[in-house]
Parts: sequence; C-alpha cells; structure tokens
Amino acid sequence: MSRAYNFSAGPAVLPLEVLQDAQKDLVDYKGCGMSVMEMSHRGKDYDAIHQEAIATFKELCGLGDDWAVCFIQGGASMQFAMIPMNFLPKGGAADYAKQGTWSGKALKEGQKVAALRGATVNVACDCAKDIPTRMPKADEWKWAAGSAYYHLCSNETIAGAEIKDFPKVGGPLICDMSSDILSCERDYNQFDMFYAGAQKNLGPSGMAVVAIRKELAAKGDDKIPTMLQYRTYVDENSLFNTPPTWGIYIFGETMKWVKKMGKENLFKLNAEKAKKIYDVIDGSDFWTGTALPEFRSNMNVTWRIHGNNEELEKKFIDEAKKLGMSSLKGHRSVGGIRASIYNAFPMEGVDALVSFMKDFEKANG
Amino acid sequence: MSRAYNFSAGPAVLPLEVLQDAQKDLVDYKGCGMSVMEMSHRGKDYDAIHQEAIATFKELCGLGDDWAVCFIQGGASMQFAMIPMNFLPKGGAADYAKQGTWSGKALKEGQKVAALRGATVNVACDCAKDIPTRMPKADEWKWAAGSAYYHLCSNETIAGAEIKDFPKVGGPLICDMSSDILSCERDYNQFDMFYAGAQKNLGPSGMAVVAIRKELAAKGDDKIPTMLQYRTYVDENSLFNTPPTWGIYIFGETMKWVKKMGKENLFKLNAEKAKKIYDVIDGSDFWTGTALPEFRSNMNVTWRIHGNNEELEKKFIDEAKKLGMSSLKGHRSVGGIRASIYNAFPMEGVDALVSFMKDFEKANG
Repeated sequence: MSRAYNFSAGPAVLPLEVLQDAQKDLVDYKGCGMSVMEMSHRGKDYDAIHQEAIATFKELCGLGDDWAVCFIQGGASMQFAMIPMNFLPKGGAADYAKQGTWSGKALKEGQKVAALRGATVNVACDCAKDIPTRMPKADEWKWAAGSAYYHLCSNETIAGAEIKDFPKVGGPLICDMSSDILSCERDYNQFDMFYAGAQKNLGPSGMAVVAIRKELAAKGDDKIPTMLQYRTYVDENSLFNTPPTWGIYIFGETMKWVKKMGKENLFKLNAEKAKKIYDVIDGSDFWTGTALPEFRSNMNVTWRIHGNNEELEKKFIDEAKKLGMSSLKGHRSVGGIRASIYNAFPMEGVDALVSFMKDFEKANG
Repeated sequence: MSRAYNFSAGPAVLPLEVLQDAQKDLVDYKGCGMSVMEMSHRGKDYDAIHQEAIATFKELCGLGDDWAVCFIQGGASMQFAMIPMNFLPKGGAADYAKQGTWSGKALKEGQKVAALRGATVNVACDCAKDIPTRMPKADEWKWAAGSAYYHLCSNETIAGAEIKDFPKVGGPLICDMSSDILSCERDYNQFDMFYAGAQKNLGPSGMAVVAIRKELAAKGDDKIPTMLQYRTYVDENSLFNTPPTWGIYIFGETMKWVKKMGKENLFKLNAEKAKKIYDVIDGSDFWTGTALPEFRSNMNVTWRIHGNNEELEKKFIDEAKKLGMSSLKGHRSVGGIRASIYNAFPMEGVDALVSFMKDFEKANG
C-alpha cells in the first residue's frame, strides 16, 4: 500500500496505527462477535469505549470534575447555533470576535438568534478580511462588559492564523478550537466552554467534541428543543439518544494515540513540522506567507506564489498531487496554497513537501 | 471468527458483506492512499460515494426529482426538533399521532416549539400506553383540518407495533420510519417527508436520512439557525458543512447490498423471519405477544413469558446470551423480550432463536 500525504484541512489524516487497529477489529471487535458499528449504545462493550474516550480526553486537557465532555452531532456549525440558543437571553447581549471565516460564521448564527429574541450581538474585533491574515493584537479586542458570553476561534483554518495569547474577557469565554485542539500547550481551564469539529485533530467527521463547565450548561435555556440543550448531553453523558458510536470509538483511539506519543513530544513535532515549511517560504521571494508571522498557525500553513500567480499555484498543486501529496489547494474562498499538518500528519510528508517546494522553485522561479 | 446473533434494536446488525468490504478498504480505499474517514468531503473520491449513496436510496424508494435526500446529524431525535422549527408557524397548528414512545417524543418536541411560538399541537390519536401495544385503527385517527403538517411513526420500536395502512390526512404527511424503512413494500410517494435514524436498516448511528419534497423544504422558516433549516441541506446537497462521511459511505454500501439482494426478496425474507418467531409465540400459552396481531411489527418482535414472569424472562435472556444471541432484553422502559430482526439479520439467527425458545419452554414451561 502506498499511503498518500494527505494535506486536507478536514476530514484529515488519522494516525496510521489507529486505522490499522480499527481495520483489524472492524468486523469483530475484540472477540465480541460484532462490529463497534453494530453494538447497542446501552451495552457493556460500547459503554467501556464511551467512558474511556471521555476520560482520556479530560486527562489530556487537564479537566476536573467541574467539566463535562459531550459528543454532539452536527460539527462546529451546529455549535454556532446551539451556543446562542442556550446562552443568549431575550434582551441580553453576547460578544463575538470576527477573526476570519469560521468565527464570522459563528457570529452570523449569533446574530440570527439575537434577531429572533431581541438580543444584541457585539462584534469585539474585525480583522476577518485583512491581508496578510492575522488575529487581533492585544489592544484590538473590544469586549463589552456584562455580556452573556464571549466567543472566539483559536485557529482560523482558512486564514492559517492562530491566537497565541488568549484575551481576558469579563464573563464566560467560549472557544472554537476545531483546527488546533490538542496541538500545542494550552491552559484549557481559562475557558468556560471549548469545542472542536472532530474531523481534524480528533477523529472522523460527524460530531463536535464539546467541553463545557457543568455550571454553564445548567444555565442554558430549558425551553428550546431537548436535543439543542447542553444539559441534555451533560445530564445523560451524551446518551440521551443514540450517539455517533463509531466516531466516538475512533476519537477514543486517537486520544490514546496522543497519550502514547506523549503530548509534549507531539506539540514539539507540530512546531518543527510547521517551521520547516515556513522556513522555505521565508527563504525566498518566490513564496509569500499569507499570515502575519506572529500569528502563523502550526496546523494550517497558508501561502502564495509571488504576485498571487494563480497559474503557477495550480501547476504546483497539480504536480504535488502526482507525487502523492494531495489537497494542497487553498480554500475555494481565498485560493492560494494550504498545507494542513494536523497531529497525525507525518514528518516524512513535510519533508517531501519541502523538498518539492525547493525543486519547484528551481524549475519555475 | 464467531459472529454473534445480534438482536439489538439499534445500533444493529449490518450486512456481513458490507462490513468485510469496509474492513478491506479501511486504511486504503480502492488504492487512493487513504481511508474514507480521511478524505476531504470536497474531493472527487468522496463525491462519488456521496452521489451514489443518494442515487441508490432514491431508486430503492422510487423517488423522483421533486425529492431531496439529506444526511442530517443528530438522528431521529434531532428531526423531532427540526420539523416544528421549520414548519410550525407562529399561531399555526400541527397534528401529531401518539402511538408509542417515539411518536410521543416527537410530539413533546412539537409542543415545546409550539409553546415558544404561540402555536397549537393537536394530538390525532393516543394509544401509546395501550396493552397489548397497537397502532390506531382506521376510525381512530382524529386529524384536524388545515394543520401545517401531520406527523406519525410507521413502526414503534419499543412497542413492536407497525402501521399497515397509512391514513389519509389533509396536508403534508411526515413519517418517522427509523425502524422499518425499506423493510417492506411501501409507497413512499404518499408522504411529503420521511426520515430514519440510520442505525437500524440503513447504516451506523450518527445521522438521519431525510427524504423531503423540495417544495416542502423551501417553505421552512428561514429565520432559524442555518444548520436547522432543511433548505440548507437541500440547496447544498448535504455539503453545507462537513457531513458524516464514514456513515454515508456505509449507508451507501448497505443500499447497494439491498439492491443486490433484491428488494422483493428481502421483504419476503423479513416477513418469513418474523412469522417464524410469531408462530412459536402463538403456538403455546407459555408466551404472550406484546402487540395486537393485526399491528405486529416485522422488525421488532416483542413478547412476554406468561404472567409477565420477569424472573423467567431474565433467565431466558441470560441463557440466550450464553448461546451467542445478544440484546434480547426488551426496552428498559417496558421490560419483556424483544427480538429486533432488521434487514441484515440472518435467517440462521432466527432459527437459532426459535429453536432455543422451544428448548426453553420444555425446560421451564
């Protein structure tokens, strides 16, 4: 088997070991006579998978008993709806950072719910359209006092920009970490809720992993439909209805892989992988990084060929694909080149990319 | 490998061929160098999977171009919320049948949304607590005129009762078919929307497959959050955000398996499998069927041991488990015995159960 170097922004590369174990056990999970996909979610075999996945994730993030970890279907996009539905009171206010496409989408859903409820949304910053792409500087955050919650996105996947220092806000801080969760050292206890669409650093697509302080979940609106209330997931340990069992299983295996690798080793490797690519970008005028250097993401490296040369970019992406490096095309909304190098992306793939970049520049520079 | 006879009500048994093919391709899907779980949902390889799954399902159900098939995360329970959020107007009315646990849950969510909007919910029948379990008889439906929609459930999984003849209603007819979709001959065009949590007859848990007339989807409320509007899924072919790609893949493979088996053959087999168990139940006073014979489900066969003998039922379930027959326990809310025998459940498993029932009666009768 020849394994592709898969630079997809998500769904994305998973650890090969996790895939191989899942393959071995797919038809008959550890001798229990059925696939994980076939197991009752109320049975003993599945229950062990469910509990271990939650426990490993909580350990990796350093979360205590005041936190619940929930599996909620619909990805981060459903969270954009659930957050205001739960926490934005009639006539109240919420704060949103607008740092790029994804935080912009979260803001839009907040505004929709605000319109239905006669509530207010404050835009705490707006650098979503800036080129080079970036995150707000320390003095640019304009958080309003007394808001019901404060929402931001730690890493903008399309822009390739990442928050390095989180701002202090005046109330519950909620963070979309879809594309950089568990990728670097971070104090998760500075948040009141954080979540991630699973399909980047956590597992296959089909759910968001949502960590929420139990105290916050209990404050949510209890008049909205049951499946949209956080308390439903907290109170029933994500077993109110049938959870996405296969996704939770692969998530749990991926968390065990992170633990086995050692978080610190993994974080160091992530920084090294990104630096190798940024060094090539910075080493020649042929390439231009898309993000301001101080906000560069270690998960999504974005860049252009000098003068935004779309023709040459297409050639680069096509030639890379022929060499087994797939999904290097930037997001359709912005173009350019993007290498998503999540936790499971191997160093050899980065080396192959870096080597190809040098060859390509020689041939086309 | 010894394969269990898995009588789970869902997640449930999947076709062995589908599992074996998925196992073979898990790490490297048809030579493309990655798992289906790792593929970009915007790429060519995944797109072919997505389109084929929809096309095969539409063909099996006999749906034309006026229908859309959507993959919506959250299972049937999320549909209970989305239906009234989309279609119950302020000050308007909707009709719900209350035939058992699941249609009762749908009703409850309809009532929640109605309370928020000053709308009305009419309960078109109530036989949810009747013993023997049953569906409404033809003259028991009390549909109100002029409601925005009419909701019912074709098969109550817990009760083991199924609608054999669907009522005529005065407007859009919406049916929860979670536990009997594609299990018997049915005219799907008599509905305006039907849906099923995938984890019974369609694939793994983690989504509902929702068939909806495009005309109905277009009428939904456009002020609610984007992810909760049907039009989002219809207009973007379920690719507005990242869909549950692995679940859609297994769903598509399962639909191809149904097509290969031949629908008519499969429907005939389903009736034969159920009849074998009902014949044993009816053949002795030792057993009592839970559902009225005219409404018996061919998917979920429910019964008791004479006098609701819980001790003996527990013994039956435990001994069956030792013989490799798992999940025969009735739903925790009602007790008793339940054999869920969905499309993929093999005849040999039914034969094993029937043979054990006879042995058990001899030993304990």
